[in-house]
Amino acid sequence: PKSGMNGNGPSKLVDPLEDPLPGVGTYEDFNTIDWVREKSKDRDRHREITNKSRQSTVALLHSVSDAFSGWLLMLLVGLMSGALAGGIDIAAHWLTDMKGGVCLIGFWFNHEHCCWKSNEATFQDRDRCPQWQSWAELITGTSEGAFAYIVNYLMYIFWALLFSFLAVTLVRAFAPYACGSGIPEIKTILSGFIIRGYLGKWTLIIKTITLVLAVSSGLSLGKEGPLVHVACCCANILCHLFTKYRKNEAKRREVLSAAAAVGVSVAFGAPIGGVLFSLEEVSYYFPLKTLWRSFFAALVAAFTLRSINPFGNSRLVLFYVEFHAPWHLVELAPFVLLGIFGGLWGALFIRANIAWCRRRKTTRLGHYPVIEVLVVAALTALLAYPNSYTRMSGAELISELFNDCSLLDSSQLCGYKQVSVGNSLADRPAGAGLYTALWQLALALVFKMMITVITFGMKVPSGLFIPSMAVGAIAGRLLGVGMEQLAYYNHDSFIFKGWCSPGADCITPGLYAMVGAAACLGGVTRMTVSLVVIMFELTGGLEYIVPLMAATMTSKWVADAFGREGIYEAHIRLNGYPFLEPKEEFEHSSLTVDVMRPKRSDPALAVLTQEGMTVGQVEALVESTHYSGFPVVVSQESQRLVGFVLRRDLLISIDNARKRQEGVVSASQVVFTEHAPSVAADAPPPLRLRGIMDLSPFTVTDHTPMDITVDIFRKLGLRQCLVTHNGLKQNTVKPLNYIHQNFPLPLCLKSAPSTKPPPAPPRPTSHTRSSRLSGCYMCVCDEKRTTLVC
Amino acid sequence: PKSGMNGNGPSKLVDPLEDPLPGVGTYEDFNTIDWVREKSKDRDRHREITNKSRQSTVALLHSVSDAFSGWLLMLLVGLMSGALAGGIDIAAHWLTDMKGGVCLIGFWFNHEHCCWKSNEATFQDRDRCPQWQSWAELITGTSEGAFAYIVNYLMYIFWALLFSFLAVTLVRAFAPYACGSGIPEIKTILSGFIIRGYLGKWTLIIKTITLVLAVSSGLSLGKEGPLVHVACCCANILCHLFTKYRKNEAKRREVLSAAAAVGVSVAFGAPIGGVLFSLEEVSYYFPLKTLWRSFFAALVAAFTLRSINPFGNSRLVLFYVEFHAPWHLVELAPFVLLGIFGGLWGALFIRANIAWCRRRKTTRLGHYPVIEVLVVAALTALLAYPNSYTRMSGAELISELFNDCSLLDSSQLCGYKQVSVGNSLADRPAGAGLYTALWQLALALVFKMMITVITFGMKVPSGLFIPSMAVGAIAGRLLGVGMEQLAYYNHDSFIFKGWCSPGADCITPGLYAMVGAAACLGGVTRMTVSLVVIMFELTGGLEYIVPLMAATMTSKWVADAFGREGIYEAHIRLNGYPFLEPKEEFEHSSLTVDVMRPKRSDPALAVLTQEGMTVGQVEALVESTHYSGFPVVVSQESQRLVGFVLRRDLLISIDNARKRQEGVVSASQVVFTEHAPSVAADAPPPLRLRGIMDLSPFTVTDHTPMDITVDIFRKLGLRQCLVTHNGLKQNTVKPLNYIHQNFPLPLCLKSAPSTKPPPAPPRPTSHTRSSRLSGCYMCVCDEKRTTLVC
Repeated sequence: PKSGMNGNGPSKLVDPLEDPLPGVGTYEDFNTIDWVREKSKDRDRHREITNKSRQSTVALLHSVSDAFSGWLLMLLVGLMSGALAGGIDIAAHWLTDMKGGVCLIGFWFNHEHCCWKSNEATFQDRDRCPQWQSWAELITGTSEGAFAYIVNYLMYIFWALLFSFLAVTLVRAFAPYACGSGIPEIKTILSGFIIRGYLGKWTLIIKTITLVLAVSSGLSLGKEGPLVHVACCCANILCHLFTKYRKNEAKRREVLSAAAAVGVSVAFGAPIGGVLFSLEEVSYYFPLKTLWRSFFAALVAAFTLRSINPFGNSRLVLFYVEFHAPWHLVELAPFVLLGIFGGLWGALFIRANIAWCRRRKTTRLGHYPVIEVLVVAALTALLAYPNSYTRMSGAELISELFNDCSLLDSSQLCGYKQVSVGNSLADRPAGAGLYTALWQLALALVFKMMITVITFGMKVPSGLFIPSMAVGAIAGRLLGVGMEQLAYYNHDSFIFKGWCSPGADCITPGLYAMVGAAACLGGVTRMTVSLVVIMFELTGGLEYIVPLMAATMTSKWVADAFGREGIYEAHIRLNGYPFLEPKEEFEHSSLTVDVMRPKRSDPALAVLTQEGMTVGQVEALVESTHYSGFPVVVSQESQRLVGFVLRRDLLISIDNARKRQEGVVSASQVVFTEHAPSVAADAPPPLRLRGIMDLSPFTVTDHTPMDITVDIFRKLGLRQCLVTHNGLKQNTVKPLNYIHQNFPLPLCLKSAPSTKPPPAPPRPTSHTRSSRLSGCYMCVCDEKRTTLVC
Repeated sequence: PKSGMNGNGPSKLVDPLEDPLPGVGTYEDFNTIDWVREKSKDRDRHREITNKSRQSTVALLHSVSDAFSGWLLMLLVGLMSGALAGGIDIAAHWLTDMKGGVCLIGFWFNHEHCCWKSNEATFQDRDRCPQWQSWAELITGTSEGAFAYIVNYLMYIFWALLFSFLAVTLVRAFAPYACGSGIPEIKTILSGFIIRGYLGKWTLIIKTITLVLAVSSGLSLGKEGPLVHVACCCANILCHLFTKYRKNEAKRREVLSAAAAVGVSVAFGAPIGGVLFSLEEVSYYFPLKTLWRSFFAALVAAFTLRSINPFGNSRLVLFYVEFHAPWHLVELAPFVLLGIFGGLWGALFIRANIAWCRRRKTTRLGHYPVIEVLVVAALTALLAYPNSYTRMSGAELISELFNDCSLLDSSQLCGYKQVSVGNSLADRPAGAGLYTALWQLALALVFKMMITVITFGMKVPSGLFIPSMAVGAIAGRLLGVGMEQLAYYNHDSFIFKGWCSPGADCITPGLYAMVGAAACLGGVTRMTVSLVVIMFELTGGLEYIVPLMAATMTSKWVADAFGREGIYEAHIRLNGYPFLEPKEEFEHSSLTVDVMRPKRSDPALAVLTQEGMTVGQVEALVESTHYSGFPVVVSQESQRLVGFVLRRDLLISIDNARKRQEGVVSASQVVFTEHAPSVAADAPPPLRLRGIMDLSPFTVTDHTPMDITVDIFRKLGLRQCLVTHNGLKQNTVKPLNYIHQNFPLPLCLKSAPSTKPPPAPPRPTSHTRSSRLSGCYMCVCDEKRTTLVC
């Protein structure tokens, strides 16, 4: 402990609490950790190991293994997440195909695998073989006609309902935390909050299973976001293997940051993009060491996934794209248009989704999650089946939309009229097939936009990446084909003249789809660099970065104009998690003194004195308040600050002393000084608690601007900060008696552990509404260094 | 100003210093900036513009243009840096070719361009045409024979000497700051130090010119590092166009961070790698906004460079590499070996180079920089010419070593014996040409290793990336060819069996060269992620990341075992710049009280009282000390802290008051309180200085562990921090009279501006030696809140 370091001679007493009690220094559920204390603990531990390592070979080996345990952990996280992601991919592929039919060779084969096994499929028509039968074929014996269509339709709906019912029931029964995308909660956890069980083994198991079911049920959701949650669960569970990470909340969060990178890495096959995603979007504390380790873990995971080869093509990336034609500067205009569309869609989606989720929270709708999921699944299946673009899975749809039409392509989207042979990839006029496809795509766009709003936030695992990208990809492809046709029929107009001569391949609709996907995803999540890098890793060509960047930038600006929060921040706020947004600037010019000024009706400050209080008095003080900690002052008269004691540590220590230490009764003195005070001979022995006192609480003066205070909270990861007032002459200003109980600190007011998420924070009072300091503790010491409200 | 915000009624006096004086709030040369103050200033400015924007359309437009000025600035930085880099490439290419011969069509054509113009060169032999004549041909009329060889040799040496002489003379005459790579200084500047002129226009002009000359002279140096300096100069100069960046040191550093990314982006054609380089290697404060803007600027620069097309191949990247064969897991062993070599070489190079630079600093060697450069240039030319691998420029050498041999390749390195036709790229036995090449490469390796040590640090612009990579690439290629031959002749051994059958292309020596280059560069600079990403951008294939990563990681670990400093940190320390390494962990378990405890012989604390001191007394105090700032306390008796005043602001204010304000004489009272004290009727009017006082100085208690204190300094970018001591009862411990003048603060002791780099910091005393807090100011207030040493 910090206090034991400056021994000042023989008068010092041995502190009975030198060895920390079990529980002292740990946190309750739904509390914020103290980053400074955790990091300090880790440094002490490291120092001890280093010092010991000079003494013996065993200790040296221990020191080396300790140094490499981080890398080993990263390796394990990468391997486990990669393997799980591969398993999820394979299972989801199989179950998705199951909705359409079954393999006669063995029901455990998916469509492609089945035909591959049968050896009867030609290379071109890999998807058609007699061994794979649709449900209609199996039941009615024919795959033609209206009846067969209806049988297939009904079987599709049946499977969708079954899968979604299983998913929501499993989530409700075993792991309520497994629902949603998990990214808002992981952001909160990484910022230092504790939600026990959120990253536990049950969540992992149930999330993995239900994710497969939810994706297969055809709901408009993706598995990419939840994969981040899955990777974080893996990391959290594996942390238990290493003392260094098990016991230290700050170190564990470093591992979780890396795991977030792993999640995106396996989701898209983009390790660098994953690391940047973790850095930009989810992490709070991201030292360089973590950057390096995240990168390592992300790579391991990507290669594990590749060696499992769930897509059967040995590609690392989810959507492999290869474009043949460069883009022209003029095309930046449609790209920016796509950016505007993406931004508008993002802003609209966030508003609509949050409104819907709030309705779910506040009305009776929220009481029937199973029925809600079933209704939405039925609706989705009912509307999606007739349209081939909504019937296929989101990832397949995107893959098809990104695709650049070659001459051999049989897809409807490539239904161009054949013109004279020249450049085989030249722009061609649209044929009937393409027109049908465009109509279907337009309908699919409207459908996807609607259904995603009510799907995201249901009680099943649901990611937002794929649906958002699908919306953007459809819009982009539509615009791309439009541009292509415009260029084909107007080669001579001033816009196209000079760069798009007849017979040239000048417009690539697939690129437009890609740009649109990036724009929409950017509008919803407000990712920027990481999004562009993920897309770059998909194409591998630096040339296409500029269109992507233009669209993403526009999208972010447009969306920000309607509200600065991305979907994850909005969900964090909706759920009332304490989260101090690291990106946001504090906008008001108030000083700390303005924010912390007490109301007249507030009670007096709750402080402990370093000596003179009895155990009974301390207990009474703790009982009568719900603050999470108490400043220790010299005396009630001279309220100079000595240190800070956390409520939890205080309660544990007194409890323990009453049980174990002889003679500690309510009348015993509580002593925080280094040297025991002189007590009367017949008095009970004092209880010394200096060991649990933080001798170096953070303080700011009351004249510190609030923006600096908020900055200190963010950058150092503080749990509390004391505000001191001093130096001004007492007679020139009226004495301030700061106390401010309504400061928006939902957790500050928490005293008992609970197993449910905390309620939404109380509305802050007018002058603090904008401070957004939720989750951080703040105390004030007034002129006489009296404390305050914690 | 912060002080004016809480008006407490009519008794408040108008402060004559409400409007800051010119000079107040600025910094002297060779001082450290106060990040907190700068950021606070910027927020105030932003708030003001936002408030005004609601009032009129003009103000709204101003607000919008202010918001976009950052992006505009980035665009300009990208364009200018890209253009300059293109110019440097073209000029260096031309001058390098000039050493070998001249173009008869026009002397301003380089070799390739000349033959391209002549139309007589075939596609295969683009480099041979009658229009390009070597000096021997031009002078003696023949290019054959010993005489011609000697003429060419002499001309080569002549040009090398001429170029290097011009370079060193220009640097000495016009811009001494233009020498070296500039990265150590830029790191220091980005951490908050001020070196006026280091990024000025003269430095830019001279560095650009001399960089071309130095590279062309054939010295073992590269232009990649200096390009970072050039880009930062561009950014700094362009900052003057925008008030927002001109006036705020913190904002300007954000732009400089982005410029560092731009520098690497244009050096390698790797925008993402550049951004990560800036993040990992040079930046100190890198908010997400900067990440995004850096990326934008890096892309703009890369595309500007591409449109200039200096390499004539429309490639974005410096070395374009395409490998055909995958690598096998067994090959990780040689890759790790290369990593070990790179780490050893890095550690050795840093030691040798620092020892040599220290010798230059301390002995008479440093007095003759021109002669030194000429001698090294002559030596380099003399030894380099006979060996074709050292004769070519570093970039060409690396490019050739990275190259994968195709069948048509005429290079000596591809001098394999032709064997039966099969896989055209199969492993083949080495022929005589290859053996010669290997010998030459081995000699080149030894030569490069030696000469680079004495070259880096001379008074010419010199980058380290290319020489380091060259060393690694040679070693890698040697090992690669060795492995290839081993595999060819031992197909059946247990190592190669199963993955390297006869006739297969299983070993790619070019990949080994690439891995070796990464390992050596990593060993010297200790870059990790950014290095791997740069290399990834060169190849564009994720498959080769794993070998690169294994080598870089090994290299870093091996090099770190010999000393944790990279070459840039070592040069920072050599030059005595104040730099608080953000990566390094503080290792000692001392408390702040241990570090700040004064010696017995130290003088009393230098403090100002908030009232009661006269102008004369204040001036005397300032005169008699050299501290950069003084705490303001309530009174000498009750030394409670009120605020902190910087020496520079104090001097400027008093000077100004004496000149402008009537009645301010030496006997005038200096008042820091909000309300004027009552003075005798005949006394001179008081001088109110509350406006220049920082009312929210950062404080830590004396029981704060030093590692936390150091963390606070790093994370918040503090310039000073006051240490308070309070709460302990005065009679239980002996009164502490902290004062510690020998705290390792070289800048703390500076009082007058100077135009030269500061001297090396004084040796700290024993108990502070390890604290490495150089450049940060730290003050202590004792029990009575007396201040201290600043």
